[in-house]
Amino acid sequence: MTMQQAKICKGCWQQMHVPVPLHGVLSVPFRAVGIRPSKMNPNTCTICESMFTTVMRARKVTIDATVMFADLRGYTSLSQALPADAISRLLDTFYDDCADAIWEQDGLLNKTIGDAVMAVFNFPIKWPDHARRAVLAAREIQRRWTEGRNALAQEFGVGTAELGVGIGIHSGELSFGEFGRSHRDLTAIGTVVNTASRAQTAASPGEILVTEAVHQRAGSDFPDSTPKPYQLKGFETPIALYAA
Amino acid sequence: MTMQQAKICKGCWQQMHVPVPLHGVLSVPFRAVGIRPSKMNPNTCTICESMFTTVMRARKVTIDATVMFADLRGYTSLSQALPADAISRLLDTFYDDCADAIWEQDGLLNKTIGDAVMAVFNFPIKWPDHARRAVLAAREIQRRWTEGRNALAQEFGVGTAELGVGIGIHSGELSFGEFGRSHRDLTAIGTVVNTASRAQTAASPGEILVTEAVHQRAGSDFPDSTPKPYQLKGFETPIALYAA
Repeated sequence: MTMQQAKICKGCWQQMHVPVPLHGVLSVPFRAVGIRPSKMNPNTCTICESMFTTVMRARKVTIDATVMFADLRGYTSLSQALPADAISRLLDTFYDDCADAIWEQDGLLNKTIGDAVMAVFNFPIKWPDHARRAVLAAREIQRRWTEGRNALAQEFGVGTAELGVGIGIHSGELSFGEFGRSHRDLTAIGTVVNTASRAQTAASPGEILVTEAVHQRAGSDFPDSTPKPYQLKGFETPIALYAA
Repeated sequence: MTMQQAKICKGCWQQMHVPVPLHGVLSVPFRAVGIRPSKMNPNTCTICESMFTTVMRARKVTIDATVMFADLRGYTSLSQALPADAISRLLDTFYDDCADAIWEQDGLLNKTIGDAVMAVFNFPIKWPDHARRAVLAAREIQRRWTEGRNALAQEFGVGTAELGVGIGIHSGELSFGEFGRSHRDLTAIGTVVNTASRAQTAASPGEILVTEAVHQRAGSDFPDSTPKPYQLKGFETPIALYAA
């Protein structure tokens, strides 16, 4: 991993100017009271995760953010053909590639769902160019995966075409916070999340599809892309998507 | 909530005969070292979650278990029509109904994924009749949701038919443990998980579809069900599913 590890929590520093040590001897008293690097982004801490209840005194907030879904294509049929051990190594590598690429852009790896990963950009670390950062993370996932999959495909005796990643990205206002009362879950919900998920479904292996909103915000990074209309499940009218 | 709260961790007691207090004054020293009720099942503790590394010294195990997926139908189109606040109340209620029904049967609410919930039965609390328990939990989710949705549908001005839950269940050997090295995630993977997920996709609102394996194990609970063949995405041959 080439990523630089943050010494203090980037979220707490950016939002409250409080230095929370994440590593080393200074972090020991913090760890004793349960403050440690977040699993969703190790450059932020668990205070950031529970910021809603402890700092903001609200369970949910409406924020402008970017959501990215990345999905390992062919996983269902592969998991029938390969032994459990091979599948688990495949997922380990995929999750790690995604995590590194997302964290490099200060995104939050919010969920892993079987063969898919969901990331949120602009929380808790804020960046005005969060849409662009999501696109950069997506391209880095494709780059890392293309680089690493050949060895895996050869070892497992499957074609590399069966091991592609499809990615969808959308930006806009969403609800972020804790959902569920008895089982509390920190996540994002709303149309932005669903649209990103559906755009991911439409992407071919190796492809990144982004919405008009992402294209407008990160436009300078798309030299010559023309939108195509896609009929996505659950949406009445076709949605225009750009290849990134 | 009618569920009885366990006083000691049911997982640690069942597997190691160690009493780990979950509530009250006896739990204070345990909480100080980070041992508290698990978010995935409050009748077990965080030791159970990390049992792989701390007790079993393996990151993953192959276990016989039952996986259930429950999905809130119409969520994508509803989330475009309703305000964020209404959607978040809808999800809170759905997650809570699922959590209560799953925990009553000693299942693990492993993940919430937008409008869907994934549960695993037979870990960490073991029951030989885990397939039957999953079916009972599924029926309880349908019962609770049908009872509660009318008020929600009326309040939000949508039809109750738009607010149905589809459920899929499958049993068999799966990999359970921690996946990913930099972002560690405790979950189940394998064909059993994918098949349960696909069976859920095939279920109509209000329906529970289970596989042959579940039917065989929990058969006495299905007085007169005939299997129907379903062509599921990612599977070459049709899969026989029973309505439960």
